[in-house]
Amino acid sequence: MKHMLENLQKKSPLVHNITNYVTVNDCANLLIACGASPIMADDVEEVEEITTISTGLNINIGTLNQRTIPAMILAGKKANLLHHPVVFDPVGAGASTLRTETAKKLMDEVNFSVIRGNISELKALSQGDSSTKGVDADVKDAVVSVDSLVSFAKEASQHVGAVVAITGEIDVISDGETAYLIQNGHPMMSKVSGTGCMLSALVGAYISANPDELLLATATAVAAMGVAGQVAFERLKPEDGNSSYRNYIIDAIYNMDGNMLENKVKYEIRR
Amino acid sequence: MKHMLENLQKKSPLVHNITNYVTVNDCANLLIACGASPIMADDVEEVEEITTISTGLNINIGTLNQRTIPAMILAGKKANLLHHPVVFDPVGAGASTLRTETAKKLMDEVNFSVIRGNISELKALSQGDSSTKGVDADVKDAVVSVDSLVSFAKEASQHVGAVVAITGEIDVISDGETAYLIQNGHPMMSKVSGTGCMLSALVGAYISANPDELLLATATAVAAMGVAGQVAFERLKPEDGNSSYRNYIIDAIYNMDGNMLENKVKYEIRR
Amino acid sequence: MKHMLENLQKKSPLVHNITNYVTVNDCANLLIACGASPIMADDVEEVEEITTISTGLNINIGTLNQRTIPAMILAGKKANLLHHPVVFDPVGAGASTLRTETAKKLMDEVNFSVIRGNISELKALSQGDSSTKGVDADVKDAVVSVDSLVSFAKEASQHVGAVVAITGEIDVISDGETAYLIQNGHPMMSKVSGTGCMLSALVGAYISANPDELLLATATAVAAMGVAGQVAFERLKPEDGNSSYRNYIIDAIYNMDGNMLENKVKYEIRR
Repeated sequence: MKHMLENLQKKSPLVHNITNYVTVNDCANLLIACGASPIMADDVEEVEEITTISTGLNINIGTLNQRTIPAMILAGKKANLLHHPVVFDPVGAGASTLRTETAKKLMDEVNFSVIRGNISELKALSQGDSSTKGVDADVKDAVVSVDSLVSFAKEASQHVGAVVAITGEIDVISDGETAYLIQNGHPMMSKVSGTGCMLSALVGAYISANPDELLLATATAVAAMGVAGQVAFERLKPEDGNSSYRNYIIDAIYNMDGNMLENKVKYEIRR
Repeated sequence: MKHMLENLQKKSPLVHNITNYVTVNDCANLLIACGASPIMADDVEEVEEITTISTGLNINIGTLNQRTIPAMILAGKKANLLHHPVVFDPVGAGASTLRTETAKKLMDEVNFSVIRGNISELKALSQGDSSTKGVDADVKDAVVSVDSLVSFAKEASQHVGAVVAITGEIDVISDGETAYLIQNGHPMMSKVSGTGCMLSALVGAYISANPDELLLATATAVAAMGVAGQVAFERLKPEDGNSSYRNYIIDAIYNMDGNMLENKVKYEIRR
Repeated sequence: MKHMLENLQKKSPLVHNITNYVTVNDCANLLIACGASPIMADDVEEVEEITTISTGLNINIGTLNQRTIPAMILAGKKANLLHHPVVFDPVGAGASTLRTETAKKLMDEVNFSVIRGNISELKALSQGDSSTKGVDADVKDAVVSVDSLVSFAKEASQHVGAVVAITGEIDVISDGETAYLIQNGHPMMSKVSGTGCMLSALVGAYISANPDELLLATATAVAAMGVAGQVAFERLKPEDGNSSYRNYIIDAIYNMDGNMLENKVKYEIRR
């Protein structure tokens, strides 16, 4: 994983983001923190050019609207043509017909390298039978065992034809054959708006710098975010809350190096 | 008030927000801080579904545009149909014809449970004779006495047919008959962009959890925000300014419990 | 420069912003921090009215889209008619045809008082031969000497018919005849998303309060931002990163007075 992080810091890839207006600023600062360079552009008239000068693309439907759907498709197709890696964050898939249908349409039109979401979102995309509670995972989608989580991730990856990163209490990343199980992070991360969006942007940076190792690059991004959540939690003073915690998480990504990551990551590989 | 806060933390309502892109991230983190769960969605194709899965709705016209006006109306009507409480923040009403006319149109089409604004905004909506200074209250709308403030709030509430929460040096909340006067908060809160928007979102959370006690729930939200402003102010170091203060306010909501609120709130009831 | 800052704090101008959704919240809080009052409004139906009640206008194309281009032109023309100062931030000019062409169209239709950008953006606007790396300056546009930077700034100012502020390792501000060279700031400012956007908003505030001294007002804004970057850097603890630094920069503007600015500013004037 150290190698993935160091490639990212060395290459400093430009990552094109078409994302929501809620957490976009945190995504921009997180991308800078990890060593990448962010550009946000969502107008149909320019997304293909912006994708062309970038090395990777991050599509997030957190505040989906009809104006930007065609821009997402255009940018995604252009990235595919140029063999740029593309990450997709299907925020709230399952919560509305527009989100579920758009997510499926995007998956039909664009070859995603990685899809990053919670268990409810991934179920909505790969099985069509989930009920998302807004943008958070539904409690009834809680996974009963690690084995079933691994199985689901492998099947979901095969079904959607991309690396999947399913984040929750335990994170699982799979390319359909191999699965990384990561046990970093802290429950308080769910109290910060946009930790999922930030992670997807981070995945975008890691796969942009490591396009030939999508599974390991994605697992490293997930691990780095988890370690940042732990490091940030340790900084919290009694009067701090979720707003300071947000700043500390981004700060922790800013200060992370390969050794810190290797020392703190807890993962196992299942085949 | 303690009971209102504890209901909120216990029920953790999902609050649908159609709001501006300036302060939306702070609103999202504040909603999480208070114990609620935020979802932002503003496309006409999905707002009715999102409102349906939510327990309350917050409409804010801070960066009003023609794309989202029909979405606001659709979501508001759906929330009315489902008997979900709806809060309205008429940011900048009186500052432009678009804002004033849209605010009035929204009030015609949607039954709001609560309207939260500054004195200039409320005058623009209930009397039509205010001159807002941008998004801040105009100095010439300053209220000469507490009695006249209470009278205005009661009349405004009757005129608009909703609980009104008028925030300023002294906050007043009225349902047309009873008025809460709240003397918490700190003048420096006006130096943070979005304290008004955040309060409206907080009202949305409180009334979602306490739909049968709109007046008390709204007064509690206003009190909680004021107490958070005081607690946050006490944390300020000499080198801190309005950006750190913003974080500390959200942090203070995150750490607030019913006892802290009861101990610090200063209010009186006028009938 | 002290006089410029004190005028700003005394007059507290209302600044109208049509800007991007990535850094808009930081721009709003920075405007409040410096003593101004921000209003964000971008719908064609209201921008002329909002500009009319404001004292200055800030146009930023960071997330340019077709909906707001006509609003930028309408607001700019109205500001010109009312003799309100207007600042333009051509974010990413050179990075896409839409941005470059829109920037040129805006410059044709609106008389800008000040244009603030990095060297690549200014080259794209005044020479048409730059290649912007996304929204950051391209390394090949690095300036070989201070003399050539001054010459370029003077020529660019004459070409675009506005005061230009070109920010980088050394900042240069010129009205075509005189140039201010400012050596404040810190390299870490480039690790915070939106320091450029925030500076443009700050220029908007300074020129709104000092419309008859555009060159000095702009130089003072650039100096104040640089000093804030230094003061904020000195506050950093080992575990802080770019997110805390962002807060500290805004905090430093909040706490800045004329004496602090005069004591820390390092500039020279070239004629």
